[in-house]
Amino acid sequence: MFKKSLLKHVAKKESVTLSFLEKQLDKGRVVIPLNNKHKITGITAIGEGLKVKINTNVGLSTNELNVKTELAKVDCALKHGTDTVMDLSVGQNLKILRKEILKTCPVPLGTVPIYEIALEAERKRGEFEKVRFDDIWDVLKKQAQEGVDFFTIHAGILKKNITMIKRKKRVGGIVSRGGALLASWMSVNKKENPFYENFDKILQLLKEYNVTLSLGDALRPGAIADSTDALQISELKTLGELVKKCRKKGVQVMVEGPGHIRLDEIKKNMHLEKKLCAKVPFYVLGPLPTDIASGYDHITAAIGGSIAALNGADFLCVVTPAEHLRHPTVEDIRNGVIASRIAARCVNVLRFKDEWDRDYQLSLERSHRNWDKILPLTIDKEKAQEYRKNLKSSEDICSMCGSFCSLKIIEKCDLLK
Amino acid sequence: MFKKSLLKHVAKKESVTLSFLEKQLDKGRVVIPLNNKHKITGITAIGEGLKVKINTNVGLSTNELNVKTELAKVDCALKHGTDTVMDLSVGQNLKILRKEILKTCPVPLGTVPIYEIALEAERKRGEFEKVRFDDIWDVLKKQAQEGVDFFTIHAGILKKNITMIKRKKRVGGIVSRGGALLASWMSVNKKENPFYENFDKILQLLKEYNVTLSLGDALRPGAIADSTDALQISELKTLGELVKKCRKKGVQVMVEGPGHIRLDEIKKNMHLEKKLCAKVPFYVLGPLPTDIASGYDHITAAIGGSIAALNGADFLCVVTPAEHLRHPTVEDIRNGVIASRIAARCVNVLRFKDEWDRDYQLSLERSHRNWDKILPLTIDKEKAQEYRKNLKSSEDICSMCGSFCSLKIIEKCDLLK
Repeated sequence: MFKKSLLKHVAKKESVTLSFLEKQLDKGRVVIPLNNKHKITGITAIGEGLKVKINTNVGLSTNELNVKTELAKVDCALKHGTDTVMDLSVGQNLKILRKEILKTCPVPLGTVPIYEIALEAERKRGEFEKVRFDDIWDVLKKQAQEGVDFFTIHAGILKKNITMIKRKKRVGGIVSRGGALLASWMSVNKKENPFYENFDKILQLLKEYNVTLSLGDALRPGAIADSTDALQISELKTLGELVKKCRKKGVQVMVEGPGHIRLDEIKKNMHLEKKLCAKVPFYVLGPLPTDIASGYDHITAAIGGSIAALNGADFLCVVTPAEHLRHPTVEDIRNGVIASRIAARCVNVLRFKDEWDRDYQLSLERSHRNWDKILPLTIDKEKAQEYRKNLKSSEDICSMCGSFCSLKIIEKCDLLK
Repeated sequence: MFKKSLLKHVAKKESVTLSFLEKQLDKGRVVIPLNNKHKITGITAIGEGLKVKINTNVGLSTNELNVKTELAKVDCALKHGTDTVMDLSVGQNLKILRKEILKTCPVPLGTVPIYEIALEAERKRGEFEKVRFDDIWDVLKKQAQEGVDFFTIHAGILKKNITMIKRKKRVGGIVSRGGALLASWMSVNKKENPFYENFDKILQLLKEYNVTLSLGDALRPGAIADSTDALQISELKTLGELVKKCRKKGVQVMVEGPGHIRLDEIKKNMHLEKKLCAKVPFYVLGPLPTDIASGYDHITAAIGGSIAALNGADFLCVVTPAEHLRHPTVEDIRNGVIASRIAARCVNVLRFKDEWDRDYQLSLERSHRNWDKILPLTIDKEKAQEYRKNLKSSEDICSMCGSFCSLKIIEKCDLLK
């Protein structure tokens, strides 16, 4: 599927051997989202045995239509080290934004095609519930042809789940946009999920363009009270079956996961996904172990994300402090990306020598208070510099110790020599 | 030791039975830092089976002498829910600040007396290394008489460790101020740690005023490369022996822990401390699972703190984004306190119905988009309001969905009724 030279490049970037990478790709435990038609320099592999990656969402909403702002968010996310970008636009100019990202962004681009499908359906048929598979197909095909590298498709929410939703009381309801649209469509049309019904046909298309499928979790809990509930597990089982179909057809596939998970259930959730879904890459949205931290959900997600990554999650979706409150700004994106990178890094340092060496080097420089060498090694040099900018350069301090600095005391009495 | 009415009040606040609280106090698994001389309304119990608590450090440094700013930090920390405050001042006005905090702050106050001891020693004898036990005793006694509720004392760093430090190469050296001062003192004077040598006498004083002892970790790793190393464990074993002495004398005691810990060693560290230290409360400083996130170390500490708390830590020390970079501002304190509260909360929601109910209630209101009810339930209402203040009140949105809001779609098709 991929040229040897490309795989060699990826293996080197990941500090793994070529044969390990090939084996993992072969088993479906690693994916390289890369559309045949898309030329990018920032090729990214995701999955077991590789560095934990992060994705940043941008997107126009029906209220926020400024393409330039969204492109500034892409730039900001790239600057701070995102591995992929997803365009979740549901606003009018979404085609313009997508084309621009595909042209200029060096890392893989993902989309959730149902958003464009919904927008088109409203325009063409008045409401999403009147959408037909032909409309769906048109959008999928066009986006694949344009070069989108991975699609989130909610093929795992089924008619039977709609009955379950009505029966089981959930605190958070359905918090996936794609999931809600499909639940509504199935409920109104009394038909099965069109993505599930036409799954083989869709796989054919994905295979043709080498679009990686990210199986969306339409029924992810939106509150820790719904964590690991029957709806979530029912969908996960369906996703496991769909993974098998993808593997059979040779379509690269990952699985998306919650969402809101109780802290003591994160590990179990990771193991369950890997078990039910043939160990394909797991892409988590958070998870958030408390619901009340709006304004600080990048922190909540960093807590959940690091535990998830330690226990098998391969790919973390950035959550910004604006989550649950408003459309994020560029600064929100920066804070979200850094928080996710910290979460991923806490695991990556344990597994990869180059990552470990950076922590080691920074700490060594810190023990000598070599500020000129410390700051460039921090995760966000500009932020660290900003924190120190009001200090006089003569003030060799880093905390509240002042002249009672442990490092200076130790230095003075030659203890470490 | 405590009046029944006080214990009843604490048990109610903690949602535990009076007999459970009494048993835990009896076994030393819970402490109530409360000096006989100190009258406060915000009595706090810390330990196994109770809510995970957080402490906020404030303090004058030798470079920052503004008492008012430090008091503003105390107010900020209280407003955002700190359970205790520690005054880590090493600056000239430290007595004024401490008296003010003792007079006005409703929660327990902790200090690290060696800081005042060091400041006095410099004034009186020219340098800390010339300090005598009499000087130490004077400060301890005065602070106990003033009403300080808990002391951090680094009695676990011993002469034998100084030899080890010279032999074992450490990346981060000694990052505890008290530890560095004592290491220097022992190295220069060729004598044993005076706090260790006079431990029984000190216990007598603590007992008299009911000052809780927080056994400091002078040899905590200051870099993940030093995580769980021989020095750390050697000191922890000594702390375990000192805990026994405290228990025998009836002095309330907790143990302090790292610092910088690899993500995959946090759980082990918590279990080790509980095992070696008779399950007395464990007070962790972070821990930070990566060294490079200066400017965002409140996030790194939230990751480490939540995993620590899930595995037995009882008390989390707030780390601000300014850690490793500068003396924190009031806004840094706010960010640090909230991050620590999120970390503690992720565990407390699992264990206490009142905490769980708040998440539940917020999520329920969120599913109906009742903004007036959601915002007051968030962890920092002002921050959440600030995030929403530029939205027109007609904009019933919380993210990038706009009109394609999952909740609205579900509502429209009556799926949850």
